Amino acid sequence: MTTPVIRVGVIGAGYVGSALVGLLLDEARHDALVDAATATLEVVAVAVRDLDKPHPGVPASLLTTDAAGLAASGDIDILVELAGGLEPTRAYIESALSRGVSVVTANKALMAERGTSLARLGHEHGADLFYEAAVGGAVPILRALRTSLAGERIERVMGIVNGTTNFILSQMTTEGSDYETALAEAKARGYAEADPTADVEGFDAAAKVLILASLAFGTELRDERISRQGISGIRTVDVEFARRAGYVIKLLGVAERVGEHGLSRRVHPAMVPVDHPLAAVHGPMNAVFVEGAISGPLMWLGEGAGGAPTATAVLGDVLDAARNRVSGRHDVPFMVDDTLVRVSAGDLPSVYYISLDVADEPGVLASVASVFGKHRVSIQSMEQFGVGTEARLSFVTHHALARDVDATIEELAKIESVDSVGACIRVIDGGNP
Amino acid sequence: MTTPVIRVGVIGAGYVGSALVGLLLDEARHDALVDAATATLEVVAVAVRDLDKPHPGVPASLLTTDAAGLAASGDIDILVELAGGLEPTRAYIESALSRGVSVVTANKALMAERGTSLARLGHEHGADLFYEAAVGGAVPILRALRTSLAGERIERVMGIVNGTTNFILSQMTTEGSDYETALAEAKARGYAEADPTADVEGFDAAAKVLILASLAFGTELRDERISRQGISGIRTVDVEFARRAGYVIKLLGVAERVGEHGLSRRVHPAMVPVDHPLAAVHGPMNAVFVEGAISGPLMWLGEGAGGAPTATAVLGDVLDAARNRVSGRHDVPFMVDDTLVRVSAGDLPSVYYISLDVADEPGVLASVASVFGKHRVSIQSMEQFGVGTEARLSFVTHHALARDVDATIEELAKIESVDSVGACIRVIDGGNP
Repeated sequence: MTTPVIRVGVIGAGYVGSALVGLLLDEARHDALVDAATATLEVVAVAVRDLDKPHPGVPASLLTTDAAGLAASGDIDILVELAGGLEPTRAYIESALSRGVSVVTANKALMAERGTSLARLGHEHGADLFYEAAVGGAVPILRALRTSLAGERIERVMGIVNGTTNFILSQMTTEGSDYETALAEAKARGYAEADPTADVEGFDAAAKVLILASLAFGTELRDERISRQGISGIRTVDVEFARRAGYVIKLLGVAERVGEHGLSRRVHPAMVPVDHPLAAVHGPMNAVFVEGAISGPLMWLGEGAGGAPTATAVLGDVLDAARNRVSGRHDVPFMVDDTLVRVSAGDLPSVYYISLDVADEPGVLASVASVFGKHRVSIQSMEQFGVGTEARLSFVTHHALARDVDATIEELAKIESVDSVGACIRVIDGGNP
Repeated sequence: MTTPVIRVGVIGAGYVGSALVGLLLDEARHDALVDAATATLEVVAVAVRDLDKPHPGVPASLLTTDAAGLAASGDIDILVELAGGLEPTRAYIESALSRGVSVVTANKALMAERGTSLARLGHEHGADLFYEAAVGGAVPILRALRTSLAGERIERVMGIVNGTTNFILSQMTTEGSDYETALAEAKARGYAEADPTADVEGFDAAAKVLILASLAFGTELRDERISRQGISGIRTVDVEFARRAGYVIKLLGVAERVGEHGLSRRVHPAMVPVDHPLAAVHGPMNAVFVEGAISGPLMWLGEGAGGAPTATAVLGDVLDAARNRVSGRHDVPFMVDDTLVRVSAGDLPSVYYISLDVADEPGVLASVASVFGKHRVSIQSMEQFGVGTEARLSFVTHHALARDVDATIEELAKIESVDSVGACIRVIDGGNP
C-alpha cells in the first residue's frame, strides 16, 4: 500500500510558522507524523514578506514572497495561514477554501469576525477550516468542543485565555507587586507588548470568547461586541482582600446560557475561590473550564502562547485536515442555533466585591449604606480599615444585578465623603461568576 | 441528501449504559446528535442479564438477554460494551471487531490487558476500537492522545485517575480526617466499595496507567505489572507535614521517559506543590497532566466517575465511530514502539519525605542519620516533634534512588529506638515525581 502525499503550503514564518515547519521537516518525527496523518506531509512552499530576513529552520528553497499565488495554487491540499491580520489574509483563505483546499489558521481576529461564514464556505467546497491555535495556544479546547463535547449541552464556558493578564495578576498575587510593576515585568519577559491595551483591557480575551461561544453554543460570528472589563484598575489592596477572603483574582472570559434561550458573553476580572481549578492556573498558562449538562465540569490547561507550543496546536489541525483529506471527508461546520438571544451583562446577577476610599468621619457609613439599599444591592459583609483620616471600606454584596451595582457606584462616587471607588469585581460564588 | 443510519447495539444497562441509552434516545438532543454523528443513531438492542430488573430509561422493547447474539449480529454497525469483566466480554468484542463492527467500551481491565491486540484486530477488519471511558471518566484524555497530541513526543504523563483515593486524600487534607474516617465517608457517599482494595492499593490506577502509557508512548499491553504503592499507610501527620511544607498528598499514576529508550510506569502517593495544577484537583475529580517536548505542560480535568459523566465519554466515542463509519474510514491503531525498555522504579531518583517514630533518647538521631548516610541518601531537611517520651522525625531527602531509600528504611526499622517507620512519600520537586 502506498502512502498518500498531502501537500502543505504555509503563509508566515514568524515564531509559530518557523516552529511548525521545523516540526514538519524533523526527520526524527517523520514516521510518527506519517502514522498520525495517514499520509506523508510535504511542505511545498513557505510564503514570507522579506526573503532577506532570517527564517531559522526553513530551507531557503521553500521560501517565496508570493502568498497570493500560494493560496491560489492548485498544488496544495492544505493551506496554513500564520501571517495574521484581516486583509489580505481573508482573501487568501477564501481563495483556498473556495477551491476545496483545507485551511489551518491561528488568526484569532479573523476567526472571531468571520469564522462562521468561512467555515460555511469550506463546507460548501468540501474543505476543513481549523483554528485551534487561535484560542489558548497549545490547549486543544476547540477540538474538544468539536469532538468530545459534540452532542453535549454546554451550560457555561469560563476561560483564562490571555496569558499576559494572567501573568500580571499572578505576579500581583505571589510577589505582592502593584499593577505597574507587574506590567513592567511582563514587558521585560516578552509577555506584554509595548502597548498592552489589547491584553490588559480584555480585547484579546473578548475575541477568544466569541470563538469559544461559537463552537460551544452555535452562535454566529458577525463583528460582535461583548461586555468587557480589563485589569488595569486592580490594586494591590484588592489582591490582598481576595487572599484574606480565600480567593484569587483572575481575568475571565465567560460565555453561558441564561434561561432557555439567553446567552451571555463577557470578559471581566473575577474573584475565584482558591480551591477552584481555575485558581491553580498560574503565570502565562491558559485554561478553559467547561460545564456540560451531563458531563459535569471539565477543564483544559496548557501554555497560552509561545512559538513551539502554539505550533503543536497548528500541527494537530494539519494532521486532522490531512486525515480527512486522505479519507475524502471533511468536518461538518458548527451548527448555528439561531434561537439564542444575547443577554446584556447588566441583566445578570452576581456577587460583587466593591471597595471605597472614604473620609473617616461620622455618618459616612450610613450614607454609603443607604445608596446600596436604594439600588436594591444587599450587603453580605463589610470590612473597614483606617488609614490616617481616611478609611477603606470593602463590601461583598449578595447577588445583585450588574446594572444596579453600576448605578450604586455612580451615585457613591458623588458623595462628598467618598474619595474614590477603588474596585468593583465579581465574586465567583457557588460556581456563578 | 438522505441521512445515513448507524445501528448501535449496547451490552450492559447499569448506570452508564442506562445513561447512554437515555442520551441516544433523547428527543431534545436528536438534531445535535445527527449533526455530530453525520448519521441518525438507531439503538437496535440493549443486552442485559436480567429482564426483570428495572432498567430506567431503556424501553422494554429494546431489551434482550442474548449478548452473544447481539455481538455476532449482522444488524449493527457499532457495539457498545458496558458490561465489564474479562470473559465472555473479550469474546463479544472479538466477534464484533472480526466482522468489521466498531466497538466502544469502558472496560478498563480488558483494555489494560488486551487493548493493543484488540485494536490491531479491529484495524485488520476496518473497525474502530475506542475506550475513552476506561480512563478518567468524563475526561477526554485518550482522544487527546490520539488526536491533539499525535506527532508530539510526550515526555511524561501524570494522572490523578482514581476518584476514590482522591476523595479520601482530599477529606484528610480539608477536614483533617484520619484515613479510616475518610474511607468510611467515601463508602457512605458511594465513592468507595465495601472492599476498597482495588482503589486504595492502586490497582485501578495501575490499569489506567497502562492504558495511558500505551497511547502516549506506544507500549504494547500484555498483562503487565507496574510498580504500585497505595494510600492506606498515609496518616494525618503526613498530610499535616505536607501542608506546612507547601504540598498536598495525591495518589499519582505516572508514565515517563527515562533517557532515550527507558520508560517508567508506576503508581504511588506523592507530595504535590500547592501551586501545581494537579494540587487543585479535589474530591472525586480526575485529571491527567501531560508534558510534551514541544507543547509544554497540558492538563485535562473532569469528573472521574458517575453514570452520566461517563456516558458522555462513551457517547463521544460512539459519535467518532459513527462519523468514521459514514466516511468509510477507521482510526489507525496506536503505534507500538518496540525500542522502549521498562525502567524499574528502584532505579529512579526522587526526593522523599520519610517519617519515623523514635524513642526520645540521646544518640537516636545520630544512629538514624548514619543509616541514611550508609545508603547514600542525603538529607535536605529534618523536623523533630516531641510526643511524651517519643519523638517524631520527619526527613526530606535530596534526590535519592528508590532502592537506596528502600534499603535505608529496611535498616531503620531494625534500630531498637525506632518504633516505626511511618511514611515514605515521593516529593514532586521541580516537576519530577
